[in-house]
Amino acid sequence: VISELTGTIIKGNRLALARLLTEVENDTPSGRAGLNDLFTQTGKAHLVGITGAMGVGKSSLVNHLAQVFRKPSVEYPASRVAIVAVDPSSPFARGAFLGDRVRMRDLSGDPGIFIRSMAARGALGGLAHATAGLTQVLDAAGYDVILIETVGAGQAEVEIARLAHTTIVVEAPGMGDDIQASKAGILEVADILVINKADMNGIENAERVLHAMLELAQPVQHKGYHAAKAQIGEGADTPLWRTPVIRAIASKGDGAVDIVDAIRKHGEYLKDTGEWISRDHERLQAELDDLIQTTLVDRWKNDLPSGRYVQALGDLFLRRISPHQAVEQLFL
Amino acid sequence: VISELTGTIIKGNRLALARLLTEVENDTPSGRAGLNDLFTQTGKAHLVGITGAMGVGKSSLVNHLAQVFRKPSVEYPASRVAIVAVDPSSPFARGAFLGDRVRMRDLSGDPGIFIRSMAARGALGGLAHATAGLTQVLDAAGYDVILIETVGAGQAEVEIARLAHTTIVVEAPGMGDDIQASKAGILEVADILVINKADMNGIENAERVLHAMLELAQPVQHKGYHAAKAQIGEGADTPLWRTPVIRAIASKGDGAVDIVDAIRKHGEYLKDTGEWISRDHERLQAELDDLIQTTLVDRWKNDLPSGRYVQALGDLFLRRISPHQAVEQLFL
Repeated sequence: VISELTGTIIKGNRLALARLLTEVENDTPSGRAGLNDLFTQTGKAHLVGITGAMGVGKSSLVNHLAQVFRKPSVEYPASRVAIVAVDPSSPFARGAFLGDRVRMRDLSGDPGIFIRSMAARGALGGLAHATAGLTQVLDAAGYDVILIETVGAGQAEVEIARLAHTTIVVEAPGMGDDIQASKAGILEVADILVINKADMNGIENAERVLHAMLELAQPVQHKGYHAAKAQIGEGADTPLWRTPVIRAIASKGDGAVDIVDAIRKHGEYLKDTGEWISRDHERLQAELDDLIQTTLVDRWKNDLPSGRYVQALGDLFLRRISPHQAVEQLFL
Repeated sequence: VISELTGTIIKGNRLALARLLTEVENDTPSGRAGLNDLFTQTGKAHLVGITGAMGVGKSSLVNHLAQVFRKPSVEYPASRVAIVAVDPSSPFARGAFLGDRVRMRDLSGDPGIFIRSMAARGALGGLAHATAGLTQVLDAAGYDVILIETVGAGQAEVEIARLAHTTIVVEAPGMGDDIQASKAGILEVADILVINKADMNGIENAERVLHAMLELAQPVQHKGYHAAKAQIGEGADTPLWRTPVIRAIASKGDGAVDIVDAIRKHGEYLKDTGEWISRDHERLQAELDDLIQTTLVDRWKNDLPSGRYVQALGDLFLRRISPHQAVEQLFL
């Protein structure tokens, strides 16, 4: 049963969509009801995570990607594109708002593009959870491609990257040597690697370092096709994704066509190998397990006579009881 | 009440200690009982986490630190030292065992040193949990300093680093440019930064990059004393810890005295500012909350009629119900 509100959203009412996104972001009862309502319509969009340190030019790149996705090509019709900009490091959406102004200038007026910013609120888990909700609403609203842009390269970004079907890591040469070329954790999850600012000095060096880092982070994919096959114990028929390294100059839009091409190829690869479905299931199960855990802890805390947790904690701090004994005491 | 086993451990029986550590690592009932028994004796040891990528020379450095801690100085008596080597990336203790052989040669025969290796088993949380248990046993057994060495620089290492009072991050110049100088996440938690292999080319460059990265990762501490004070809103009396960057050549033992000195200074800083106690309380509360969460989820899964979770998951995968509706269904 689709309610009136969600019906108008599916029909393309942008104001209704913006309102529901706010409700979902704040995790209100009507936000949850809207999500429940729309959920049957999800599962079609290609979720693309774009991450990288501040200053590598992600926002500008994302704008150009959106514009390329909007143009029909010989092989592909125009896609409807939603952009979700997430800033986990900022308690308010400074960077994102700044980026939005540039975006409005470049992308506004196109009904096939929808832009949404989100800043850090509460816990890490909370942010990933809210982002999951937003992408579900946008997916149901009929956006074919959802570009999820995050600032920084910490744990929060890796968590958000795990939401995506395709994860793009953006790097840039220079900026205090290879400081940007860090993020051991996030390179492991990169499906596409972009070196932006390819007109800057040090591009060859950056490219060399990134190839070496990719080899460290993704040894199987980067040892060459046959060695990799042997290592994962698969036959020669199963295709294997080898993370491409693509040069770009986002300020001019250079490289955007190649990146969009790689995103589409990766989407096809995921569908051909069944990974599209397995990533989808992993994502949904992780979300369910997370909600179960939160619900259990919340209910338990509500039921516990007030003061008992603090009492146990105090005994623990004084080392009168061990952590296990504290749990036994609380679950008596 | 201290049982016979734990009594002999506190009296210095190394075989009994090794046995209890194995029980704790495997989280057996007698391991838990031993921990409960010993827990009142914990809270005295200085926990020092040492992290950094593979190949930077951590094991060799840790050996030299242990030897320095063993020698009485004008200011300090000899400390009893335990070493816990954790390899979260390896399903078996390859690297750790290799390091152990070198260790045995350098450190064996000294009753004031105890060495223990641990490899990845099960979940990340499990590893951090097991490490917490091991350090508690060693703490109760009377080791004054516990050096917790981890390989790699991912999420697991940050989690394990959070167990420590003092976190040391080890870097090395070279090795494919500044690949080692990554770990944005872990630099934020560094209390002491060591540049090992200081006799290699590129040491000045590595030092410059690391200072710049520290400034990015810890802006308050690195903006200079007065600016930092103003920013955290504190008076001029409260001391402020400024992460030192120390050069070392672990193969020769160079720098080990300076590092031990910095570790002891950091310990005093923590005690003077009350941070020793607040870090201790944070650690214990995190451990308690973790156990509560695990207990709740385990009990809930046990009580749930078999098949209901799988049923809900299947409905979710088919998008018949949303994650929130799945939770509602499971908690009916």
